[in-house]
Amino acid sequence: MIIHLKNNLSQERIAAIAQQTESIYTKDSNGTDLLIASSKLKVLPAELEADVEAVFPMSTDIQLASKDYKQETRKVTIGNVQIGGDSRNSIVIGGPCSVESLEQITQSAELMKGLGITTLRAGCYKPRTSPYSFQGMGLEGLMLLAKMREQYGLNIITEVKDSSHVNDVIEHSDIVQVGAKAMYDHSILKACGKARKPVLLKRGFGTTLQEFVQAAEFILSGGNEQVMLCERGIRTFETKTRFTLDLCGVAFLKEYTNLPIILDPSHAMGYRYGVADLARACLAMDIDGLLIETHPNPEVAKSDASQQLNHEEFTAMFKSLEPIARAVNRTLV
Amino acid sequence: MIIHLKNNLSQERIAAIAQQTESIYTKDSNGTDLLIASSKLKVLPAELEADVEAVFPMSTDIQLASKDYKQETRKVTIGNVQIGGDSRNSIVIGGPCSVESLEQITQSAELMKGLGITTLRAGCYKPRTSPYSFQGMGLEGLMLLAKMREQYGLNIITEVKDSSHVNDVIEHSDIVQVGAKAMYDHSILKACGKARKPVLLKRGFGTTLQEFVQAAEFILSGGNEQVMLCERGIRTFETKTRFTLDLCGVAFLKEYTNLPIILDPSHAMGYRYGVADLARACLAMDIDGLLIETHPNPEVAKSDASQQLNHEEFTAMFKSLEPIARAVNRTLV
Amino acid sequence: MIIHLKNNLSQERIAAIAQQTESIYTKDSNGTDLLIASSKLKVLPAELEADVEAVFPMSTDIQLASKDYKQETRKVTIGNVQIGGDSRNSIVIGGPCSVESLEQITQSAELMKGLGITTLRAGCYKPRTSPYSFQGMGLEGLMLLAKMREQYGLNIITEVKDSSHVNDVIEHSDIVQVGAKAMYDHSILKACGKARKPVLLKRGFGTTLQEFVQAAEFILSGGNEQVMLCERGIRTFETKTRFTLDLCGVAFLKEYTNLPIILDPSHAMGYRYGVADLARACLAMDIDGLLIETHPNPEVAKSDASQQLNHEEFTAMFKSLEPIARAVNRTLV
Amino acid sequence: MIIHLKNNLSQERIAAIAQQTESIYTKDSNGTDLLIASSKLKVLPAELEADVEAVFPMSTDIQLASKDYKQETRKVTIGNVQIGGDSRNSIVIGGPCSVESLEQITQSAELMKGLGITTLRAGCYKPRTSPYSFQGMGLEGLMLLAKMREQYGLNIITEVKDSSHVNDVIEHSDIVQVGAKAMYDHSILKACGKARKPVLLKRGFGTTLQEFVQAAEFILSGGNEQVMLCERGIRTFETKTRFTLDLCGVAFLKEYTNLPIILDPSHAMGYRYGVADLARACLAMDIDGLLIETHPNPEVAKSDASQQLNHEEFTAMFKSLEPIARAVNRTLV
Repeated sequence: MIIHLKNNLSQERIAAIAQQTESIYTKDSNGTDLLIASSKLKVLPAELEADVEAVFPMSTDIQLASKDYKQETRKVTIGNVQIGGDSRNSIVIGGPCSVESLEQITQSAELMKGLGITTLRAGCYKPRTSPYSFQGMGLEGLMLLAKMREQYGLNIITEVKDSSHVNDVIEHSDIVQVGAKAMYDHSILKACGKARKPVLLKRGFGTTLQEFVQAAEFILSGGNEQVMLCERGIRTFETKTRFTLDLCGVAFLKEYTNLPIILDPSHAMGYRYGVADLARACLAMDIDGLLIETHPNPEVAKSDASQQLNHEEFTAMFKSLEPIARAVNRTLV
Repeated sequence: MIIHLKNNLSQERIAAIAQQTESIYTKDSNGTDLLIASSKLKVLPAELEADVEAVFPMSTDIQLASKDYKQETRKVTIGNVQIGGDSRNSIVIGGPCSVESLEQITQSAELMKGLGITTLRAGCYKPRTSPYSFQGMGLEGLMLLAKMREQYGLNIITEVKDSSHVNDVIEHSDIVQVGAKAMYDHSILKACGKARKPVLLKRGFGTTLQEFVQAAEFILSGGNEQVMLCERGIRTFETKTRFTLDLCGVAFLKEYTNLPIILDPSHAMGYRYGVADLARACLAMDIDGLLIETHPNPEVAKSDASQQLNHEEFTAMFKSLEPIARAVNRTLV
Repeated sequence: MIIHLKNNLSQERIAAIAQQTESIYTKDSNGTDLLIASSKLKVLPAELEADVEAVFPMSTDIQLASKDYKQETRKVTIGNVQIGGDSRNSIVIGGPCSVESLEQITQSAELMKGLGITTLRAGCYKPRTSPYSFQGMGLEGLMLLAKMREQYGLNIITEVKDSSHVNDVIEHSDIVQVGAKAMYDHSILKACGKARKPVLLKRGFGTTLQEFVQAAEFILSGGNEQVMLCERGIRTFETKTRFTLDLCGVAFLKEYTNLPIILDPSHAMGYRYGVADLARACLAMDIDGLLIETHPNPEVAKSDASQQLNHEEFTAMFKSLEPIARAVNRTLV
Repeated sequence: MIIHLKNNLSQERIAAIAQQTESIYTKDSNGTDLLIASSKLKVLPAELEADVEAVFPMSTDIQLASKDYKQETRKVTIGNVQIGGDSRNSIVIGGPCSVESLEQITQSAELMKGLGITTLRAGCYKPRTSPYSFQGMGLEGLMLLAKMREQYGLNIITEVKDSSHVNDVIEHSDIVQVGAKAMYDHSILKACGKARKPVLLKRGFGTTLQEFVQAAEFILSGGNEQVMLCERGIRTFETKTRFTLDLCGVAFLKEYTNLPIILDPSHAMGYRYGVADLARACLAMDIDGLLIETHPNPEVAKSDASQQLNHEEFTAMFKSLEPIARAVNRTLV
């Protein structure tokens, strides 16, 4: 249950109501004091009515993210670009899997700049499944990304893989990406809740839609309303492709949640050959953005070599998105 | 291994080579005598060389369907409509889940006719998972579909669920649909191999891409080259939607096989609300056709009530496909 | 809803009630006339009460197989062996994947005989996923199995893969095995419903427990009460093993259904090395039987070579089952 | 590749070789200096041969955990109890899902003590999927567990859910449990690598066996050889049970890895009714231990209420394990 408190309550009173209802307290961007209790709470205790402006009983713990609470898609501002709300914008985010060197990331930044793309992605902390492979450049990579922001005016998105570096990423990026393997991590989710940066939350490959949106609730109820959901493929019995992109799930998210949706066909597919087709299909789903991997020289990439487009392929793919965007009444930003 | 025989061999000689190489014999549409042996056979026995025109060693038992054997997409002719080959056509097939009555199927036929759609779908033999629910109208339904063909000049597609009625369906339909639960059935696949009608083969919801295309090999090696592959959702851990439409798998099929691809977003989604978005996404994958369920009055449908569009929704969805088709350089037929 | 009719009704009256309630009619082994309507029917129409002895409203279409209808496990008789009921017997069934020759199947039969095992398994009609691999010996294999029955007094179980040979298998075997890929086939299920032989129904690898038991309902409502459920592994994201044996699902089946349960660790595992451990684990689940593949010379087996135990391994495995059986108060038969 | 260095090398020389081979350095319990390079390294550079005692080229990044490197199961010591090695011991670990109060955890401790069980489990930091449900008692719970150790002489195991509290858990427990949702977290894995406490690593419900064992490699290569693998159910299409316990996967782990295996049927099943059968089946797999949830009053448990046995059920289950242990030549500790 979401509870809108009256706006003249003391902090002590709010704390008392929160304790009684076992609620989380936050203040939304309209300045309203909110308490969010378990969705099992269906009726407000009568003695609290005097302190309460409105209550929203909810059917599941998808609460702040639910269209039943707030119908319109939430607005997210990335630099001077906006998605969600009534914008009809779709953001395209490109860049390599990992920052590997100044030269490599500069080439990527120049590609984005040249295509009019506003946001550059690249990983610094790689959530590899083996200890014996490349683990990312860490803070050094983050500094290279910050340099690209300065030099090219690009927004930067990079991934948090565990809580040891979450504050570094929050400080140095424009969008904080919470990785598929880290999305259950409460320390990270809580840090993101306190951050004043947009968060792109990736769905775990074994994560149900219910759990996925509930992870977003950790951030929303922490006070950060700028959360984007990113579907990037789930693990199924089919192994000819790396993962299975769940567009039926995307339809569900569009129908029931109020968060902007960004899709990542690169990780889902795992192979260069399907990425452009899938990128067009994703955009035709009428969603808020795309995340696509591209590398100046995929053959020598230190991670995910097989799925990164080269710059020529990326450029062709990007240009082919324009008519699809028009067809679904979207503007690429 | 696919073996092209020289064109003057006697039936006895062909039979002898087939036995020696444990091959299946068929004649292709160019009149070439083919033998298809296991893909484990990598080198032709030397003593057979004199009788052989060409050999194609293959890496897996995806052989006749493989782009390594035949690069261009195979051509399929449905009435006076063609897909595959160099046509760039995408066929839209609509209609209800089941034939329920003359009145209902007539309404469906009129909708298709009115929109310029050439092919009507509807099930007569329903592969229900419970014996205690509606099992379809059977042959009576098939006769109603045949009537629609006569009356409206529509092509008819209906599903075979087991081998007891496969010959009836082959006789009375223009496309034989092999259902997701029947696609391992060798009796059906063999009957389809002998048929001179296009076959739409649905992927089982627990079927790997390898097995799926190998099922098509049963039909192709039986002598019927007009096979279309239909992805309709696989079963995964996610249960908010009925199935998970596997567009990564579609990218694989496009890359490695030479069969036209038809997508069925209705069964994948299981709910009306996502079907139109998914239909647009499917078409943006640059595929050969769509299969969409629509019912004059979905609320009272005897099967799959929740996923069938009403006629207004279907019409809106159909009209929205046009700009997507243009964007990927396709013509709707 | 299961409806027990009074025992003096005319066939016309029964047919009329069946039509009114959209029910399936059968007579159970106690001579009671049963009608089984959809589980959506919760209340009997008042005008029928005079003709009805008892009604059992059911929560799902698992009806005749449900413990809510009949608490005790159903009794199945295989030759002079009985499982289910109050027997506490567990049957061990062994033999090769396929009948390959008289010599091979004789060796298998002698192994079973020597170990005191009563039932021999072997496939004649192989549901292979490729048309270019060994498809089984067909009727010839069935005749070899019949010979083993005569010569060694063994019960025979073999698999139906499609409806073209279902009557042959019913005629010549002691247990009719419905294969994992054929279990949705209504023609086969209906033929089994009319048969007077026990049926072993395998769960499809993509089949939910609900669908699996509903397939058994087709047989039970057809008039054959001797149905055994066989779990043999489901398809999951894990591919190091062939399938994933679902023992949690077995716990569900034991809790909610009244059908004996036979487990097949060989197909689940797909590799010889895990079969003996899994066989012991299965038996420790307190179930009614095991199906284990063994071949006189697995290296040269024409199908499933990697998962068949050799005779020495099978013998050791079989002997190790005895203390497990005692531990769960079961007798091996 | 695992490289055993000669035992007189300077730290500088070791560092130089590590850098050249992109290896991780550790010292094993025999005092050998080890370098572990990527498994892609198949041949040692010739110039290093003089410094190297032995090399083990490995086929995958399962290296230290592989039977190809070390055949015998690794020994793990928990208080005065030992599993693995040549012990043939199987440890039974019981206790509630969460520490809820002193009274509750005392009842649990007394049950364990009374049954002769040496190790008590209970969660303090709960990895809940909703922010609006009970999140555990945190450090306060950990202190209650420490009290139980003192008072009853029990070993304590509790779960780390994120890296913010990993050091607290390492300090106050006897076994550090890395939870299914945290097992990809490198911060936690590295902290465990440095710890001198046994670690129980749970498999993620969407984690392949390969990834699972590679997560153990992070700990092993960090210098901690006492790692136990815990299978607790994977996520599949079947939803009648909470997860699907993967005993085929356990057979794989037994065959290819040298780490002791502990199984958790409670989380896999999710319902009380199947736990005892599954516990017996797990032990019959011939594994090193079991983790079973039990609560003094499951109906009021603050988490996982449906799957916890009450004390009577737990006692009956525990007693029924004895004959199974004997059947597979194991001793319960």
